[in-house]
Amino acid sequence: MDLKIELKKRADFFNQQLEKFLQGGEPETLYDAVRHLPLAGGKRLRPCLAMIACEAVSGDILNVIPITIAIELTHNFTLVHDDIMDKSKLRRNFPTVHIKYGEPTAIIAGDLLFAKAFESTHNIKGDLSIFKNVEFGLIDCIREISEGQQLDMEFEKRHNIKEDEYIDMILKKTAVLFMYSSEAGAILGEGSKEQISALNEYGKNLGLGFQITDDYLDMSSDEKILGKDIGNDIRNGKKTLIAVHCLNNLKDNDKKTFDKIFGNINANEEEIKQVYNLFKKTGSVEYARNKSLEYCEKAKKSIEILPESEAKQILLKLAEYSIKREK
Amino acid sequence: MDLKIELKKRADFFNQQLEKFLQGGEPETLYDAVRHLPLAGGKRLRPCLAMIACEAVSGDILNVIPITIAIELTHNFTLVHDDIMDKSKLRRNFPTVHIKYGEPTAIIAGDLLFAKAFESTHNIKGDLSIFKNVEFGLIDCIREISEGQQLDMEFEKRHNIKEDEYIDMILKKTAVLFMYSSEAGAILGEGSKEQISALNEYGKNLGLGFQITDDYLDMSSDEKILGKDIGNDIRNGKKTLIAVHCLNNLKDNDKKTFDKIFGNINANEEEIKQVYNLFKKTGSVEYARNKSLEYCEKAKKSIEILPESEAKQILLKLAEYSIKREK
Repeated sequence: MDLKIELKKRADFFNQQLEKFLQGGEPETLYDAVRHLPLAGGKRLRPCLAMIACEAVSGDILNVIPITIAIELTHNFTLVHDDIMDKSKLRRNFPTVHIKYGEPTAIIAGDLLFAKAFESTHNIKGDLSIFKNVEFGLIDCIREISEGQQLDMEFEKRHNIKEDEYIDMILKKTAVLFMYSSEAGAILGEGSKEQISALNEYGKNLGLGFQITDDYLDMSSDEKILGKDIGNDIRNGKKTLIAVHCLNNLKDNDKKTFDKIFGNINANEEEIKQVYNLFKKTGSVEYARNKSLEYCEKAKKSIEILPESEAKQILLKLAEYSIKREK
Repeated sequence: MDLKIELKKRADFFNQQLEKFLQGGEPETLYDAVRHLPLAGGKRLRPCLAMIACEAVSGDILNVIPITIAIELTHNFTLVHDDIMDKSKLRRNFPTVHIKYGEPTAIIAGDLLFAKAFESTHNIKGDLSIFKNVEFGLIDCIREISEGQQLDMEFEKRHNIKEDEYIDMILKKTAVLFMYSSEAGAILGEGSKEQISALNEYGKNLGLGFQITDDYLDMSSDEKILGKDIGNDIRNGKKTLIAVHCLNNLKDNDKKTFDKIFGNINANEEEIKQVYNLFKKTGSVEYARNKSLEYCEKAKKSIEILPESEAKQILLKLAEYSIKREK
């Protein structure tokens, strides 16, 4: 079984449904702005996760389509608004929505994507109490994502962040939507309580491993050491696991050096290099790598109770991929 | 019966429920930003409308509380995002959310208010199919409000707007939420089909009259003729009913003068005055005034079929107030 082929098969099917769902609408400019990011491609990891979780409990994949659309649109609305907040110019190699359509239309387009996510949850068939339960889960996710985004911003300005504060922040900012995707797939696939709880735990660990790997990938390449990304993260005082581990393990002069440079928007390239060397000295890059491996193992262990199936094999490979990927 | 006292009684009760609903939450700064506008007061017209519609069909007011909160939070999230789009500095005499908390937190706070609106719809008690139906109505409203906001922006840049395009725009931007408040109050109050439809019609006409009155109030005061509001609306090419009527009724040189000044961001005070005089020459200010009176009469007529009650009397007075108010 080839993970990439299996993911692509599901992503292609999902893309057809999404395109159909996002067709039409007036004023046209607004709906073009709404479609811009969701139809710009992407790996569709979250929708695939919901589909595979559904399959892993022998559910009917058609039952999860409305929630996969809702999840992807939720993810996209947060990205559209994030890009405004971060003044980002590119996303998935395309100009961001606010660059192409202007900030006012981008704000509205994000709100409309949010509304359309809930429009899609209303297409969930069957028992209304399941619909209500699943929809409430999505509302709760959005609340937590909002809290996570705010924490992420506040951490940039705070000096000391403990590791458990960092984990709580990425749990909210990133992992809850993976957790929700996996859990909602299991619920709508009519899995047992134990299966639903196993897939919830799987999604959570997958999401945490995924986010730490993101942090790691941004920071680990020697070639990029003086590149824009690492430099900016250090200048902005971005609290990745690497930075958090490093600042909690430095002493004396090293700590003074770190504190002077980290979060200093005017740090020069030599100073950026100094901080990067401190990351290595404290073993923080390696530490983050090991943490993401741990979460990958936890994710795999979470689904031990699931019956053998191709879907289960895909989930096991997905856990490995999410931390072994190179981009 | 004193309309102001009746509205205040309901607004006070609503405010208690809203405050309770918005208590707590972390990170604190984010939740302070979330509470900033909703707890800054306001007339609470939409929640009151839902409550009174419920009473007018002899429903239990406690059943509508969750939807009144959802409606007010929806209204507030659109205002928080609107103020960012318009770069407004003040709202209800307080600094706007983005001025007080910064744009990134204001964007997230708007999104969280949106999520909390749906959190509140989930508190609707009773039949799940009614819950689903009422919630879908709110999703639809938000879609239409988004479309209306986009149209409003696009109209500023377009030269010719027909009156029915203008009505469609304010229907979406403003009237649908009045319509929804009134209808949802009637549905959750367990009114008959005819009563629900009557109150839907009432809300629509009330909302249209309300918005045209807003346009009128902004444009009608002689004292304000060279004031900031009128000047800016004319410089921005803001398509109020007054402007739309005027530009559709001007001829020859008057039309040329109008076209040269209206929407010209650098227009001087003398030119603003010229446009204002054209508004009067075409009878456009008077025309808008009469239109708002028409909608008020339609609103009153819509609820003829409702049984006599104090609530009905309040609705009749509210229709008059919404166009006779001075701010």
